[in-house]
Amino acid sequence: MLHPVVLSGGSGSRLWPLSRQNQPKQFLSLIGDHSLYQETVLRASKLPTAQPPVTVCSEDHRFMVGEQLQAVGIPNGGILLEPVARSTAPAIALAALHVLTDDPAATLLVMPADHLIEDEAAFRDAVSAATGLAQEGWLVTFGITPDYAETGYGYILCGELLSEQGYRVEQFVEKPDLSTAERYVAEGTYAWNSGMFLFRAQSYLDELARHAPVVFEAARAAYAAAVSDLDFIRVDKQAFASSPSDSIDYAVMEKTDHAAVVPVSCGWSDIGSWSSLWSVAERDGDGNRHEGDVISVDTRGSLVRASERRMIATIGVEDLVIIDTPDATLVARKDRVQDVKTVVEHLKAAGRQEHLFHRKVYRPWGSYDSIDVGERFQVKRIVVKPGAALSLQKHHKRAEHWIVVSGVAEVTCDDRVFDLHENESTYIPLGSVHRLRNRGTEPVELIEVQSGHYLGEDDIVRLEDVYGRS
Amino acid sequence: MLHPVVLSGGSGSRLWPLSRQNQPKQFLSLIGDHSLYQETVLRASKLPTAQPPVTVCSEDHRFMVGEQLQAVGIPNGGILLEPVARSTAPAIALAALHVLTDDPAATLLVMPADHLIEDEAAFRDAVSAATGLAQEGWLVTFGITPDYAETGYGYILCGELLSEQGYRVEQFVEKPDLSTAERYVAEGTYAWNSGMFLFRAQSYLDELARHAPVVFEAARAAYAAAVSDLDFIRVDKQAFASSPSDSIDYAVMEKTDHAAVVPVSCGWSDIGSWSSLWSVAERDGDGNRHEGDVISVDTRGSLVRASERRMIATIGVEDLVIIDTPDATLVARKDRVQDVKTVVEHLKAAGRQEHLFHRKVYRPWGSYDSIDVGERFQVKRIVVKPGAALSLQKHHKRAEHWIVVSGVAEVTCDDRVFDLHENESTYIPLGSVHRLRNRGTEPVELIEVQSGHYLGEDDIVRLEDVYGRS
Repeated sequence: MLHPVVLSGGSGSRLWPLSRQNQPKQFLSLIGDHSLYQETVLRASKLPTAQPPVTVCSEDHRFMVGEQLQAVGIPNGGILLEPVARSTAPAIALAALHVLTDDPAATLLVMPADHLIEDEAAFRDAVSAATGLAQEGWLVTFGITPDYAETGYGYILCGELLSEQGYRVEQFVEKPDLSTAERYVAEGTYAWNSGMFLFRAQSYLDELARHAPVVFEAARAAYAAAVSDLDFIRVDKQAFASSPSDSIDYAVMEKTDHAAVVPVSCGWSDIGSWSSLWSVAERDGDGNRHEGDVISVDTRGSLVRASERRMIATIGVEDLVIIDTPDATLVARKDRVQDVKTVVEHLKAAGRQEHLFHRKVYRPWGSYDSIDVGERFQVKRIVVKPGAALSLQKHHKRAEHWIVVSGVAEVTCDDRVFDLHENESTYIPLGSVHRLRNRGTEPVELIEVQSGHYLGEDDIVRLEDVYGRS
Repeated sequence: MLHPVVLSGGSGSRLWPLSRQNQPKQFLSLIGDHSLYQETVLRASKLPTAQPPVTVCSEDHRFMVGEQLQAVGIPNGGILLEPVARSTAPAIALAALHVLTDDPAATLLVMPADHLIEDEAAFRDAVSAATGLAQEGWLVTFGITPDYAETGYGYILCGELLSEQGYRVEQFVEKPDLSTAERYVAEGTYAWNSGMFLFRAQSYLDELARHAPVVFEAARAAYAAAVSDLDFIRVDKQAFASSPSDSIDYAVMEKTDHAAVVPVSCGWSDIGSWSSLWSVAERDGDGNRHEGDVISVDTRGSLVRASERRMIATIGVEDLVIIDTPDATLVARKDRVQDVKTVVEHLKAAGRQEHLFHRKVYRPWGSYDSIDVGERFQVKRIVVKPGAALSLQKHHKRAEHWIVVSGVAEVTCDDRVFDLHENESTYIPLGSVHRLRNRGTEPVELIEVQSGHYLGEDDIVRLEDVYGRS
């Protein structure tokens, strides 16, 4: 059986301001309606013998992973939470250990959650070729046939032919300089190191145990002490943290005698920057990619993305990236977008929030958006999903007014429990124990007006929570 | 006595998206804390024998004029409302007729409301020189000593010397081409036509009656039938509309034998575009002018203006104008900002609102800002000024929830009148006759949540209004 393993890493800074630490690139709909993560699991689900995908992600993103899987109707093969980031080698080991509990002959297809693949047929062929090699014990990496002399990726030199489409890996080479990259492309025997792999779970663990025993042992102990929490699998933090931070390339692929490569040309992109998104997106006759409400006059070669309820007008500009969000707008020269990280560093250094959260924040029960803030008040638009409930909670420093504008909310306020319909309101006095629940089948939308001298998110005492947060 | 006359014309399209039809350039704080209109009346108030200013403006801007005068403590010498736009000749005639009712020897200093003057001392000297000539019956225009070969202004050729600082006007010349403009600047006897004038009110009316009798008669009849409405003077619409649309230059200055010019170098700018605002604003070492929350990396020669609660980040860009507002952002090359009018034409043609109103709308009683909109609801932040009241009104299609977040509101709802304090709320059912009033000395801020299937501004029945709008 083929077990897709989706690695949801990434800090979310390269596509700022759209990507934020709590909603990085893989969870954004950058091209089309689905997120890159959803595209990844959908693509994998169509492969022969594919089982439900295993996702390895950070604890912060667990609800988003669950929700995005559910939204595209893909069953959950396990959501493994990394208690700390330790790169890909131990993360893949957790997934291997997990699938081996039920399927001792499991084959893993390891994919980063944030890559784009345009030609699914070519990808399926490559997976099929790789599966053949994996059955013979090979650890296969997918090598992307280079389109141009990219200096931002590592390369793989193909060696001896092993099968119709596979080669022994002759050498992994680091990111080259431009002239070296040009030579690699000209020679035709090099491929980009894509970060996608296919191997039997047991083969990977065997080679990991041989070449990186500390990593192996940390992952083994962490998984052995794992506990289930709702849909999530929490591995042991102390054990997992004892692993060094090692990539699969460094820990296993560069060391094993069983490394193979299947070259593939499948319209692959890691969308590593706004300019690479522009280059893979469909563009108009002037080379522009517009999303949302954009009016452009004499504009060329630009990516312009307006956010909801806002328009952007451009005049006489060329080769720009303009990304608008409710609280921050980026205007950058397209060939300078790598400096987005400089802006993110500024934000970090200044102790700001715009690199961490969007104005609209997703929660396991729905979302809230801070639509207005004043000296002693804040207004939020809150959406509660059908069947969901916020925690039973109280605040020490604020009172709240709730006005339901859509759906039917069940309100708990101290001893009373009552329904609040569209166009009805209630008042939650300071210190009251309260809860908001949606027992209906439609989302509940409400406007919350908070009143008080301190309105921080940390003024919340959770007395009870269905999501394990109390 | 010197009577400042401030002409508040202008459609507000050249500085879009900050300027809108209902809040054009003269009412914006572009440089410093005061609007250009406020700067204009403050500057005039410091002149010897200056009387309270007379303002000629469109009906749409009457409350803004009144409020902005009050905010800087300048008494109102008359706010004349133009029922239709007929250019400067009839507008100045209304002002002349108005001041002559109390001061038959009145001297008028006519100034557009949207010009910047940096060197007030030089301006005062020029006014003093012009006053001397006006006493002798001259109609004086202020000619700006040109800094460079501008092709966007008309020029005035100075003739015979009349006084220490004044010349007879030899000729008014239309906007020249570049080589002609360069010649004018080199010759040193030409000045820019600034649109500022000084003359005795009676001299102007006499010359207008002689050279443009239809304009004169229209203004005379319109003023004769004027009625007072609160602080405003409403002239007769039919009479005023019978005037042709003529500028003072065309109707009087180019025709009279008594045209004089006082050249002046006073740091004048008409701020006719975003690039001219950039050029008069203080800039940092990289030639940037930043306003609000801006993070810039390798940015040069740019004007960047963030709006409240939003940040802008720029990377590697040069010579851009980036203007952010709550509902629209402009990104333009600095030398292409004249095409802002193309964008405004797009908006007009598409039947949109972004060239007419800001998201935050000023009213005589305060302001409202539409902070969120959904399918069947809208959320507004409403500010009611001390002593102010909204009209007594009702809605056919919406109910409203009010939550006071600051101050004390007096609420009328059908038969009840009661006070609503901070952190208190009330409900205004559909069809109820209601009013909101602020009897206190601090502004009242409240959050209004509207609920209903139709939420347009036109669903309002005004039963009573202190501002004459019912």
